[in-house]
Amino acid sequence: MKRIYFQAGPTTLPKEVMQQAKEEWDDFLGTGLNIMEHSHRGSEYEGIHNQAKTRMKRLLDIPDTHEVLFLQGGASLQFAMIPMNLIQSGKTAKYILTGSWSEKAYKEAQKIGSCEAVVTGKDSEYRALPEMNYVSSENDAYLHITSNNTIYGTQWPDLHAFKHPNLVADMSSDIMSRPLSIKDYGLIYAGAQKNLGPSGVTAVIIRKDLLQENKSVPSILSYCVHAKNNSLYNTPPVYSIYLLNLVLGWIEKSGGVVEMEKRNHNKAQVIYDAIDQSNGFYNGYATPESRSNMNITFTLESDALEKQFIKESEENGIYGLKGHRSVGGFRASIYNAVPQESCDSLAQFMKHFQEKYGK
Amino acid sequence: MKRIYFQAGPTTLPKEVMQQAKEEWDDFLGTGLNIMEHSHRGSEYEGIHNQAKTRMKRLLDIPDTHEVLFLQGGASLQFAMIPMNLIQSGKTAKYILTGSWSEKAYKEAQKIGSCEAVVTGKDSEYRALPEMNYVSSENDAYLHITSNNTIYGTQWPDLHAFKHPNLVADMSSDIMSRPLSIKDYGLIYAGAQKNLGPSGVTAVIIRKDLLQENKSVPSILSYCVHAKNNSLYNTPPVYSIYLLNLVLGWIEKSGGVVEMEKRNHNKAQVIYDAIDQSNGFYNGYATPESRSNMNITFTLESDALEKQFIKESEENGIYGLKGHRSVGGFRASIYNAVPQESCDSLAQFMKHFQEKYGK
Repeated sequence: MKRIYFQAGPTTLPKEVMQQAKEEWDDFLGTGLNIMEHSHRGSEYEGIHNQAKTRMKRLLDIPDTHEVLFLQGGASLQFAMIPMNLIQSGKTAKYILTGSWSEKAYKEAQKIGSCEAVVTGKDSEYRALPEMNYVSSENDAYLHITSNNTIYGTQWPDLHAFKHPNLVADMSSDIMSRPLSIKDYGLIYAGAQKNLGPSGVTAVIIRKDLLQENKSVPSILSYCVHAKNNSLYNTPPVYSIYLLNLVLGWIEKSGGVVEMEKRNHNKAQVIYDAIDQSNGFYNGYATPESRSNMNITFTLESDALEKQFIKESEENGIYGLKGHRSVGGFRASIYNAVPQESCDSLAQFMKHFQEKYGK
Repeated sequence: MKRIYFQAGPTTLPKEVMQQAKEEWDDFLGTGLNIMEHSHRGSEYEGIHNQAKTRMKRLLDIPDTHEVLFLQGGASLQFAMIPMNLIQSGKTAKYILTGSWSEKAYKEAQKIGSCEAVVTGKDSEYRALPEMNYVSSENDAYLHITSNNTIYGTQWPDLHAFKHPNLVADMSSDIMSRPLSIKDYGLIYAGAQKNLGPSGVTAVIIRKDLLQENKSVPSILSYCVHAKNNSLYNTPPVYSIYLLNLVLGWIEKSGGVVEMEKRNHNKAQVIYDAIDQSNGFYNGYATPESRSNMNITFTLESDALEKQFIKESEENGIYGLKGHRSVGGFRASIYNAVPQESCDSLAQFMKHFQEKYGK
């Protein structure tokens, strides 16, 4: 039986990407080597590296005011690098808390500099995004947000709500899923393993005036050093960037981020419909106005029924639905590479399951 | 024409490893996915992760006093993490300088805590390893060495010379090339892209008493946090660790590090013989007693001849010989995965080239 997957990340990559990588496995551009066996200073890898950067710029319409970096260490390393590089003396970083990941980002920043949580959705158990009533202050180093909250299944519908001179956004779980207005951001970061490629590389988009040299920051943790070296200060994760480049090529061929947004909306809709039309058999975790088009979270009324759901879904070739332990229930992660048919199959399975076990 | 490669890293992987990865590309253990598409919390990846750790322990005979970690960020991130985690208040870290990489490690440590260079080989332009006359002091946080110097082509022949309670060694370019006495080390680190696998993962072996919790260190930069989470604190570089695990399996099947040492010695010997028997046509950069079995550095008497050498070597299918800009000339990097036949071919080419252009 053909399996379909909905895991939260690392997750499936587009079939076309995996096919091309397989074809180039033994012999990249006639060299007799895989690209990962090439020096990162050689022309073969250089071509990939710069193409990935160009594609990022083109897909997100990144203006010349901003630089694109490819780093290691995931979003977790960004939780440390951002305050190390961007909190100047006398300034305070502000954090909006909308889930576990923004809490983590805030907790790590507290170890490094002055910071403060200014808006929180914790009262609603992160089911709803908080009211966005924060007004920026001159004293702010930056304002940090998480655009999509994988664990709770919420996503800011309109990022234009955040007006801040130095807006910093963790977009690990929804970058490239919709168009962005890059000029509104000081810094955007995203671990690749959801919408950009395999794990092992992190994309950073940073406004150039924030690339301040600070000799007390270790070189490997300095945005300025990475920018000066075109992300080749140290050996990059060659193969992860190679695959990221293929994924970006696939997004371009598919019609770009406008098309991704349309597809993701349609994919999410069929699953939310299955929830909303179930008369309370399925309970969506996130409130409707805060719902994510990337991670769909829902529960059933009893543990026994939830166990049965997982069991029967796997018997039907559907994998990766178990929810995060802090929410329970189920989570269907439907990143860019998950096709409409997978979402249709899940919605259909949900209806059959309800017919069998619903009252 | 079949090409052979001698680049300094990332470099070629064993053919058997690349073949197995290709076979498992589409369908890892019957899941219909590549291992990189699996969640890092799933049983498929967990099996790989723990097998890699077990193989590291078995191959290097790592006692229970030491922990094995798989991190991101390369040796360059270790240059920062080591002083952040290991320099306690009132202590000074000591560095032995034997080339550009130990200089970089020292420079980064100076940003973080008290440290001092105690022995240097700079006077010899790093052609020779310095005399090892340093006696440890109670005040030392640790003593840092670089076991093999890729750029200059030197390698400490006997690591037992370093007696220090907290010996820290950068083994990025010679780990798994020879047996080690792990109990003699506080910490060993190695970027994977020379002897362990592709770029994107760094192995760390750390004595457990050095895993001190320090709440001021960001979680992602804390050895203690990574050890407590079995290197799964954040999403690991799944595919790099998968390939590292295959490389370790290949070393085991080949006869382990004792066999690697024998092979590397024999491989190096044929090239050093071509240098030594050339009557000064080829000049070895490193002094004979400091020579590396991983990186063989040599020059020719004129720029014109060196250009001709590169040109004709490539015409003969031999790639990756250009030396680092700080030394010039040539560097043949012959890490574990480079076969004896490649070294024989290079030595033969060197002899033919000398017959053609020598006086």
